[in-house]
Amino acid sequence: MVDHIVVVGCNAAGATAAMQARKFSRKVGITIFNEEPYSQYSRCGLPYTISGKVRALEDLVLTPPESWSGMSIDARLGTTVTDIDHSSRTVKYRGKSDSGATPYDSLIFATGAKNSDPPMRGLNKRRVYGLRTLEDARALADEVTKSKNLVIIGGGLVGMEAAEAFCERGVHVTVVEFLPNVLLAMVDPDMAEIVETHCREHGLEILTNTAAQEILGESSPRGVRVADRSSRESRDIAADAVIVATGVRPVTELAQKIGVEIGVTRGIKTNDHMMTNLNDVYACGDCAENFDFVTHEPMTMGLGTIAVRQARVAGINAAGGDERFPGIVGAKVTKLFGLEIASTGLSEDLAKRFEVEVVKGSVKGITKPPYYVGGKDLKVKLFFDKQTRKLVGGQLVGTEDAAMRLNVITMGIQSGVDAAGFFQFENCYAPAICDTWDPLVTAADAAKKRLKP
Amino acid sequence: MVDHIVVVGCNAAGATAAMQARKFSRKVGITIFNEEPYSQYSRCGLPYTISGKVRALEDLVLTPPESWSGMSIDARLGTTVTDIDHSSRTVKYRGKSDSGATPYDSLIFATGAKNSDPPMRGLNKRRVYGLRTLEDARALADEVTKSKNLVIIGGGLVGMEAAEAFCERGVHVTVVEFLPNVLLAMVDPDMAEIVETHCREHGLEILTNTAAQEILGESSPRGVRVADRSSRESRDIAADAVIVATGVRPVTELAQKIGVEIGVTRGIKTNDHMMTNLNDVYACGDCAENFDFVTHEPMTMGLGTIAVRQARVAGINAAGGDERFPGIVGAKVTKLFGLEIASTGLSEDLAKRFEVEVVKGSVKGITKPPYYVGGKDLKVKLFFDKQTRKLVGGQLVGTEDAAMRLNVITMGIQSGVDAAGFFQFENCYAPAICDTWDPLVTAADAAKKRLKP
Repeated sequence: MVDHIVVVGCNAAGATAAMQARKFSRKVGITIFNEEPYSQYSRCGLPYTISGKVRALEDLVLTPPESWSGMSIDARLGTTVTDIDHSSRTVKYRGKSDSGATPYDSLIFATGAKNSDPPMRGLNKRRVYGLRTLEDARALADEVTKSKNLVIIGGGLVGMEAAEAFCERGVHVTVVEFLPNVLLAMVDPDMAEIVETHCREHGLEILTNTAAQEILGESSPRGVRVADRSSRESRDIAADAVIVATGVRPVTELAQKIGVEIGVTRGIKTNDHMMTNLNDVYACGDCAENFDFVTHEPMTMGLGTIAVRQARVAGINAAGGDERFPGIVGAKVTKLFGLEIASTGLSEDLAKRFEVEVVKGSVKGITKPPYYVGGKDLKVKLFFDKQTRKLVGGQLVGTEDAAMRLNVITMGIQSGVDAAGFFQFENCYAPAICDTWDPLVTAADAAKKRLKP
Repeated sequence: MVDHIVVVGCNAAGATAAMQARKFSRKVGITIFNEEPYSQYSRCGLPYTISGKVRALEDLVLTPPESWSGMSIDARLGTTVTDIDHSSRTVKYRGKSDSGATPYDSLIFATGAKNSDPPMRGLNKRRVYGLRTLEDARALADEVTKSKNLVIIGGGLVGMEAAEAFCERGVHVTVVEFLPNVLLAMVDPDMAEIVETHCREHGLEILTNTAAQEILGESSPRGVRVADRSSRESRDIAADAVIVATGVRPVTELAQKIGVEIGVTRGIKTNDHMMTNLNDVYACGDCAENFDFVTHEPMTMGLGTIAVRQARVAGINAAGGDERFPGIVGAKVTKLFGLEIASTGLSEDLAKRFEVEVVKGSVKGITKPPYYVGGKDLKVKLFFDKQTRKLVGGQLVGTEDAAMRLNVITMGIQSGVDAAGFFQFENCYAPAICDTWDPLVTAADAAKKRLKP
């Protein structure tokens, strides 16, 4: 019998877990702790407060602090969980004005992730930012008018979305990426190159295969010293401000303290009930390791979609339910200067890492019939498992309808479609929408032919 | 052993069948006959030649006449098949300058459909048009400048797309629909009402539940007499020109002549190999009856997607292959004044007709997260079979990303997903694209709850 649930962390995962627990049980007591003074807001929306596509920072707050009491959830914002005694099932907390202890029957870790700084000098200067919190975004908003040259270290999703936002506001932006391409955690190199070309055409400077070595300047930046990783030549790029966006790592200290097992991906190990190795202790969201949907390999994925889906399962199970999380497909999407970049399931890189032999179907298509004005180029890639012939991944890049097409691929992966089945896909057709054979189907056909024994 | 294939009809189905037969076999002889002097063009593109979204009628020709010889296909354009002797396996034809007979081992009917005129007076006047052929479109193009008032009889896909085109060119258009709503062969009444409101806001007049009784005037129209089917009151609407778009019926006369069986839907009955009751005689496209994917009930569907998919199967099988058509899901989409209207699988009406008890999940959602500017309303409806709990249909209406979302539903239907499975769907998420729980998933959740025993 669960009398009381404690949730540590109140962002996408924590807030969702608490609300789903409440939906499942009207009676259970729920306390949710958040170090930040806010309750759930959209982290993914932060870059858009800079470009103005999100009008105000406050708009990002999805669950206003005053709404918790209406759900009979005790939300302790600006309150840090300092210790947990799992033998007595008690968390200790400290807020600005109070401190104390709360008992629990079920405990949910939704502690998220934090920025993982790169090994370089000069990170402690003023006007060097991360972009993970409302405070970060608030501080960065000033740089739109103050800064002429912005350097962003890291060409992942956050780095690229921030770069677009500042570019759109007229700031000169250089992205410095250590790897040979941007967005490699998302798409294959050939897709990434399309993205880079497109972004450069819109005024963004991108330095790939380049190491950021030092932020130069006294109290605030005057430049960033970077080194080409091939030629080993160094040079200095002017910068009034710097954003560091070199990835995150799961926050697991508290969990480790009580003996919760950490996985190979550095996240908190969970099973398909989102339960850790300790009974009645759950984890969800960016702090949690779960499984890749296709290969069942351990995977931690900092995606909002995954966070809320895992949190729903954790919240309901923590309240006494029996829900199952099916594994992480990893559908990712973004839009940069009008270009949609979308990826799901295994990429070439992931397939290699998980030792899945894949057969690729790749086409350059067009979003509408050729006779209808305004169709846009679309590059599509599908991956099928050579053994099972099943769909295991896909990627799209294009200025129109790439993201929504990705959803078809994800649905296909989740329902176990194979190449022959995908080729039978009856896409909708109208001249104003798309052609009789969607590029997705053509790509499936290409793979199907290569799968022949 | 197949030495020679004859294809009757050279539009989407016939042309595809011939080309796929050639792809399958380099050696087989192929002759394709077309009554029209053109070879394959996009019928669906015709309305857009009026609005200018297709620049020239010629752009619609997908397979230029001169390209057939390059494929070693003998294309007899402007040539009518006058008779078939199936005992000797010979077709007789008559062209403008020649006539003769051609033998076949395999025969493919791709005779399409023709307009089915409504029971009303005055149809024989000048300036009364259908919209099914290039000639129709050519004639109608003149009306853009000549006509002030256009009446379109029939609010189906063709009627509504033509109405949009003329509206956009500044002509005053009235659509007269016999049934209580437009597009009822596609969507449920509640969805159709959203479409009607939207179209009216863009200046289109729509009279539903209204019978067109007579086209008035001497040699050409001066008006159309219509009667409200409830009040039975008649009135006359001004019209300089009239388009009749009251549906089509399969062209099956030649097939019937040689003993090919016709189905309940009036199409040529075919099996999953697209073969008729006669060995080596196939049918595909608008003239062919096949099966509904979900219920396996007989179905004829005048869709380009279905035509080319059936034709691929027919063409390959006619050449000696062994391909299977999986049945018709019936994914339909159009765009009217920026509003996307999309439907797949069973509608309320079809479910009733096929006696499938369905449970509905219906939501009014928004295409993007609420904090991101510019998200658009989206109405989503999913149907699940109450017995099997499987997804059997869905509809969307919205000004953004409705059509592409439909593809997810179709993929779900084709791969047998149930409500619980659809609720697990991991849609992609980014503020600029869509929210963490896509309206599709919310709709699946709504249905899942109602499916509980």
